[in-house]
Amino acid sequence: MSLIVQKFGGTSVGSIERIQAVAAKVKKFRDDGHQVVVVVSAMSGETNRLIGLAEEINPAIDPREYDVLVSTGEQVTISLLSMALKTLGCDARSYTGAQVRVLTDSAHSKARIQEIDDHRIRADLDQGRVVVVAGFQGVDVEGNITTLGRGGSDTSAVALAAALKAEECQIYTDVDGVYTTDPRVVENARRLSKITFEEMLEMASQGSKVLQIRSVEFAGKYRVPLRVLSSFEEGEGTLITFEEDETMENPVVSGIAFNRDEAKITLAGVPDQPGTASKILGTVAAANIEVDVIIQNVGHDGASDFSFTVHKNDLDKALKVLEGIKSELGVRELTFDNTIAKVAAVGVGMRSHAGVAATMFKALADENINIEMISTSEIKITVIIAEKYLELAVRSIHAAFGLDEKLQQK
Amino acid sequence: MSLIVQKFGGTSVGSIERIQAVAAKVKKFRDDGHQVVVVVSAMSGETNRLIGLAEEINPAIDPREYDVLVSTGEQVTISLLSMALKTLGCDARSYTGAQVRVLTDSAHSKARIQEIDDHRIRADLDQGRVVVVAGFQGVDVEGNITTLGRGGSDTSAVALAAALKAEECQIYTDVDGVYTTDPRVVENARRLSKITFEEMLEMASQGSKVLQIRSVEFAGKYRVPLRVLSSFEEGEGTLITFEEDETMENPVVSGIAFNRDEAKITLAGVPDQPGTASKILGTVAAANIEVDVIIQNVGHDGASDFSFTVHKNDLDKALKVLEGIKSELGVRELTFDNTIAKVAAVGVGMRSHAGVAATMFKALADENINIEMISTSEIKITVIIAEKYLELAVRSIHAAFGLDEKLQQK
Repeated sequence: MSLIVQKFGGTSVGSIERIQAVAAKVKKFRDDGHQVVVVVSAMSGETNRLIGLAEEINPAIDPREYDVLVSTGEQVTISLLSMALKTLGCDARSYTGAQVRVLTDSAHSKARIQEIDDHRIRADLDQGRVVVVAGFQGVDVEGNITTLGRGGSDTSAVALAAALKAEECQIYTDVDGVYTTDPRVVENARRLSKITFEEMLEMASQGSKVLQIRSVEFAGKYRVPLRVLSSFEEGEGTLITFEEDETMENPVVSGIAFNRDEAKITLAGVPDQPGTASKILGTVAAANIEVDVIIQNVGHDGASDFSFTVHKNDLDKALKVLEGIKSELGVRELTFDNTIAKVAAVGVGMRSHAGVAATMFKALADENINIEMISTSEIKITVIIAEKYLELAVRSIHAAFGLDEKLQQK
Repeated sequence: MSLIVQKFGGTSVGSIERIQAVAAKVKKFRDDGHQVVVVVSAMSGETNRLIGLAEEINPAIDPREYDVLVSTGEQVTISLLSMALKTLGCDARSYTGAQVRVLTDSAHSKARIQEIDDHRIRADLDQGRVVVVAGFQGVDVEGNITTLGRGGSDTSAVALAAALKAEECQIYTDVDGVYTTDPRVVENARRLSKITFEEMLEMASQGSKVLQIRSVEFAGKYRVPLRVLSSFEEGEGTLITFEEDETMENPVVSGIAFNRDEAKITLAGVPDQPGTASKILGTVAAANIEVDVIIQNVGHDGASDFSFTVHKNDLDKALKVLEGIKSELGVRELTFDNTIAKVAAVGVGMRSHAGVAATMFKALADENINIEMISTSEIKITVIIAEKYLELAVRSIHAAFGLDEKLQQK
């Protein structure tokens, strides 16, 4: 008998019918002999309804009272799901974050979990009950209700799985797993049955929005095996593991991530002097702008070109602050391009395989796609290309690494 | 500086606008230098909405999870009211029943308050904050959420007032106080500025549905002065006191209560033997039927007539069980009348005044209204009359005791 933590998001519990479907799913695991702890979000739309009420009173919402308010959303769901489970003959008991108790710091609306008391949950599990816990919420040391911020239910589930040393933390979503790339772009993208944490982090930060990046990091830190599954379909989803699987040959590349939300900024003719790069990025960071890919090539004649990408929304602000330091740094020219896209091949397998970059660049060359920037890490190769070639680039790289459904059965 | 507990019901907090109006009212008391603890119900309609969700899952609602569910209603209100107060520049902090902590027994959905911890509330009051507490809810010794049952917010307010030794517990409702009788029947019924607890209990049980009878009993037990006021209008409402006011002449009669929901049952020719009355009432009580007025007059020829009233809804059931013991008891005849009404004059003043009954009976005689039954207690005289004379009887008695607006200024 193993202990499983299952998390169902707002869409999965968005109506009474869906809550009943979740209850049936949970009961099946219980009937199979597992101990089950279920973490749920508020019914979809409920959190926004509550925030709407608060904003009618004051758009500058009081953080402590905001948490008291929105935490009622999950509290409604835990009671309804527990009722639905009992109606199916599956004994269950609900817990709010405070009841568990999920101890957090006092940073209202973005609190961090510090400690989870597993005492009451274990007692219920030992009596054969399913335990239903309100995600997204906790309580600080003074008894004030706190929330973890949007998406915090994933974090709640992972933290509970870590505290209970669960065999697996299953995150039910509206997709049936992690894909080799976005199926809307590549029709025969394939669901991965396994992916490593490192790969998942690279995929997630590149815009594969299956899991909250914070919960993946949390799961990695506490070594909780995560599984992404569909709430609405049967299937085993994708397991996110720590260890690279030694029993089978790893594919060189596990997935292709991409992102079209970035713009490129180039400072041409930057004097080759110590401290220049730090001055440029320090100025940008001071304006609260996040920088993604950064490239500086070797210089010529005592000067070089320095390029980096920022979110398109931050482009104007970035250009403005850079204009301010341009002459001070002796930069010849400041240019930008907001019609670029980023494509990355991700895979732990590339650590031990040579020629991965060559395969990727050849796939692009075959389609006559020019590479504007290149950046590599141990398990990822990123290129910046013109946005109009994005779909073509993703499809050809996806095929080049044998990721298409028909070409490879994992 | 005095400490006041104010309770606002569901209608008073039924919309954001009304919550803002409550905040303004509360702030005025705070600005006048009072310490204020506010107890609120769920926004009107919210509790029914939540119960509706639960009933979609299972009409036989699980009591523990029911309490988890419905307690969110008040939690929403406390956060919104606290936000509204802060927006007006009045520092405030919300507490759920569990946070206070309002310790109850474990009888879910009809729990009884056992103890209130005033520690956190006092700390906030001392820092100049208004404290906003969720009514209707508490927590048992094991940390399970409990509710007190419908109308429980009044009880929460009174219990808090008792625990905090508040100067006054103000119950805001949709009426502006307790009246000498129902203004829908007697146009010039008068609002009482004061009424004693005993009178209030007699009035309330007779159908003046201003306050939950349970909260009045609770207030009496812990000697908490209660004040009934309007949420929507200005005014000092009605103060419910323990002590009969010695400084002014008490009116003989404070109010006229009435009830048209009862039916009369008569057992004629009941043998004058010990145990007969107990046999009759025991049989009725065993069928879970509540009996109100009971009359037995002196007998003739070894037999007497025994009459009592029950709620009209219970009439058929009562007749059926009595039919079963009629011959066993040697009762001659079993009759009923479901076209009666009950009218009562209530007043602590009648303790020291003779002739109150005479005044009441004369008022009825002047209108040619026949009295079918009479029952008296220390502070109440009750008569049963034909239902069709009810309004006429109430008006004439109201006038006879000088209760009409124009005749008496209190």
